[in-house]
Amino acid sequence: MTFSAHHAATGETLAPAYTDATPAEIDAVAEGARQAAEAFAATAPAVRAGLLEAIALNLEARREAWIDRAHLETGLPPARLQGECARTVGQLRLFAALVREGSWADARIDPADTTRKPAPKPDLRRMLRALGPVAVFGASNFPFAFSVAGGDTASALAAGNPVVVKAHPAHPGTSDIAAEAIRTAVAAAGLPAGVFGLVHGAAPEVSHALVRHPAICAVGFTGSAQAGKALLATAAARPELIPVFAEMGSINPIFVLPGALAERGAAIAEGLVNSFTLGVGQFCTKPGLVIGVAGATWESFSAEVAKRAQAVAPGVMLHAGIKAGFVRASAALQNVEWLAEGAAKVARVSAAEFMVRPELAQEIFGPYTLLVTARDSAELMALAEHLEGQLTATVHGTEAELTAVPGLFTVLTRKAGRVLCNGFPTGVEVSPAMQHGGPFPATTDARFTSVGTAAILRFVRPVCYQAFPDALLPAELQNANPLGLMRLVNNTLTREAVR
Amino acid sequence: MTFSAHHAATGETLAPAYTDATPAEIDAVAEGARQAAEAFAATAPAVRAGLLEAIALNLEARREAWIDRAHLETGLPPARLQGECARTVGQLRLFAALVREGSWADARIDPADTTRKPAPKPDLRRMLRALGPVAVFGASNFPFAFSVAGGDTASALAAGNPVVVKAHPAHPGTSDIAAEAIRTAVAAAGLPAGVFGLVHGAAPEVSHALVRHPAICAVGFTGSAQAGKALLATAAARPELIPVFAEMGSINPIFVLPGALAERGAAIAEGLVNSFTLGVGQFCTKPGLVIGVAGATWESFSAEVAKRAQAVAPGVMLHAGIKAGFVRASAALQNVEWLAEGAAKVARVSAAEFMVRPELAQEIFGPYTLLVTARDSAELMALAEHLEGQLTATVHGTEAELTAVPGLFTVLTRKAGRVLCNGFPTGVEVSPAMQHGGPFPATTDARFTSVGTAAILRFVRPVCYQAFPDALLPAELQNANPLGLMRLVNNTLTREAVR
Repeated sequence: MTFSAHHAATGETLAPAYTDATPAEIDAVAEGARQAAEAFAATAPAVRAGLLEAIALNLEARREAWIDRAHLETGLPPARLQGECARTVGQLRLFAALVREGSWADARIDPADTTRKPAPKPDLRRMLRALGPVAVFGASNFPFAFSVAGGDTASALAAGNPVVVKAHPAHPGTSDIAAEAIRTAVAAAGLPAGVFGLVHGAAPEVSHALVRHPAICAVGFTGSAQAGKALLATAAARPELIPVFAEMGSINPIFVLPGALAERGAAIAEGLVNSFTLGVGQFCTKPGLVIGVAGATWESFSAEVAKRAQAVAPGVMLHAGIKAGFVRASAALQNVEWLAEGAAKVARVSAAEFMVRPELAQEIFGPYTLLVTARDSAELMALAEHLEGQLTATVHGTEAELTAVPGLFTVLTRKAGRVLCNGFPTGVEVSPAMQHGGPFPATTDARFTSVGTAAILRFVRPVCYQAFPDALLPAELQNANPLGLMRLVNNTLTREAVR
Repeated sequence: MTFSAHHAATGETLAPAYTDATPAEIDAVAEGARQAAEAFAATAPAVRAGLLEAIALNLEARREAWIDRAHLETGLPPARLQGECARTVGQLRLFAALVREGSWADARIDPADTTRKPAPKPDLRRMLRALGPVAVFGASNFPFAFSVAGGDTASALAAGNPVVVKAHPAHPGTSDIAAEAIRTAVAAAGLPAGVFGLVHGAAPEVSHALVRHPAICAVGFTGSAQAGKALLATAAARPELIPVFAEMGSINPIFVLPGALAERGAAIAEGLVNSFTLGVGQFCTKPGLVIGVAGATWESFSAEVAKRAQAVAPGVMLHAGIKAGFVRASAALQNVEWLAEGAAKVARVSAAEFMVRPELAQEIFGPYTLLVTARDSAELMALAEHLEGQLTATVHGTEAELTAVPGLFTVLTRKAGRVLCNGFPTGVEVSPAMQHGGPFPATTDARFTSVGTAAILRFVRPVCYQAFPDALLPAELQNANPLGLMRLVNNTLTREAVR
């Protein structure tokens, strides 16, 4: 089957036409990755860092064409795409720096003790190593940062895993530009071409065939719950089980406490409307649920949110499917109080209602949020407890209020990967302390993140070397510590050589 | 249904009779764990360390009764049980020390930068926190170290997770003694009783009901592939996906290269027979596959293995089911050359034969190993490539041989969690550098280990705190670093306070 990208603003078909990858093509790309895996995993960290830096430079060299094409295919404004481009090359360089420094590999050395009784203690050395070829499925809403050259690819390559990207069918041309930048860097580094592969496809079967392929050792996915769960089921049916990290979105609850509303209700309303309409509401961290306690401050806050939301101008959505989904999902919401029904939509229900209508807790991708009125703080707590897993959860409160509700933070810490005070969840930093993940159904495994340096941990596994001659060990584990890593030697962190 | 333990040596029924936990009982124990979870997760590290140390002391106080009962129920000799008891209390103390030191929590702090353009950078702090109640399924072959108070329980409690153990039906009395030691320690620490629970059951449904229970947030399992895969399927069908770490055994290949056999073939044969018959062959790291290259050294090695195996005295197996399984599985092996058919069994086949008969690659739990003759070193390499995921893989070679086969190590590193030079895989150290895990089907997730301090990582997830007042942060993340942890501050490892 062939397919094309479409001009996001006009719907017009964009050349060229793309063809769903055939089973033979998918097999060839995955086999290429398999064949490249050992050589790539064995490269020195500096080689992988150099590759990531070269990809960043290549992308910068293609910056204008890349942004132009992405603007056509996604409708995202050039200023946003410039920022996302900077973020994308920035995260490639962040992983390059992580790999150059090297301590992420968690090298551990338990030296031998030949005199131990009753049995001598063998020399054990352990570090994190590449898993093997990673299949990456990008998202339509971040055509750079969560796509072909995005965080999944950067973190997988950093660890030494070949990557096979299934390009998002909504931005195939943008994907091709990034793929060419990566391929050029791979070739220039003298690495096997199989270190990076890309397949196109609009048919779900392309994605499933890739996940089923025996050469694939892990999956990184960002997208809808429906697509994520379908790929997860395919992975679970493989003869060889592999790790799947799927980030499937969230409604990102915000709790606004009465004191905060009294103190700065209008500012919170402004921040909220900015956050849930940012990027036309097309972020997985978009706050889609706002909970407050009934009363005068909540009423004036609701009115302020309504007023500001009504004033929001329409934006271009990413593609026809997302736009249609937004229209359908918001039209389907019955028996809610509509506070704003323009380009940005705000509905309101009682907490009691929310807790018995699971459809109200479904993510609606687009400029929509739901205000929920709790009778009192006990009902607000009950609602917090009622929530399922989330990427983020936020509390707005005065200092005194925040201190007075430790129980709320305890519950939210259990429900979400990132908990915020007096902020908004959109805007995900790419840094060591970021956690972009959360309990199911936000992701398939709350123990991992897809953003920040810790994202590399999804695609590595520990290997223990017992009684190896020093020369046969990876450099990370050799006595002399030639890479100067922080290592756990005899249960003590040190950069010293062994013995 | 009721069931009893049996005297391993005589088959005689041991009092008392046990009853399968009812659904209501399972629910009560799991709900107790849920209710204890928040308070336990919030305890100071020193409280959890104290709990683990108290459990160790309580077990030591019950040592004689514990060993006596385990000897009856498992047939394991007292000397072995004394060693396993020491290992078990040792690993409780190891996790206590890990928690007291505290840096395992991987605290990361990215301070705010309010002057950053275009947007200010928020304060982000991230650490590993408890997942919630963990269901633990112990193994019959380690009634102490992989059972009620074993590594799964120790690592889960260390992180602040309540534990619900499903006692192994082959050693319920041993399990009760350990459970009482833990309960006593939990009560003495003033912790909620739900921090630890135990259910009995011989019917598989007890295990499945526990895995299905909504209060359970993670599963740790050690046992057979059949039972592990069944529990995995039950977990995968839950509405809320949870992490399952199941260690399901392995055949632990040993490659013996011709030079090593020429140099010390008799010693290797002796070590091999000791290793595969140790504990009556009832270890998940038992070497069940030995690969060599056809020739005179291989023939004399095979003869030496046969001779030593024939001399092995019969041992008492863990229970009637394991004994029957061993007899059945070894009797079912057709078209192999039997080198030893006494208490210890050794068969031999060609590598070509091995690679087309998948039943030969199945684990046979008990004193059995299979010698496989490769035509040449190319076929030996092909066989290595043919293997599925393993807990361990070993190479015996001279220094020159080991250096000459980097490709073999590369393949084995991909196949196994622990790779050994010139050793035997039985004897698993409990230490920071140990990796007891491996690619499927050895375990369900090669990224984790069930032995060693890193076992704690199975039962924790990162939580990021954005813009929190210092006083509301966990101590691990507070500016002053009151616990003195090694933390990643501004991407640099330090024990210094922030600012």
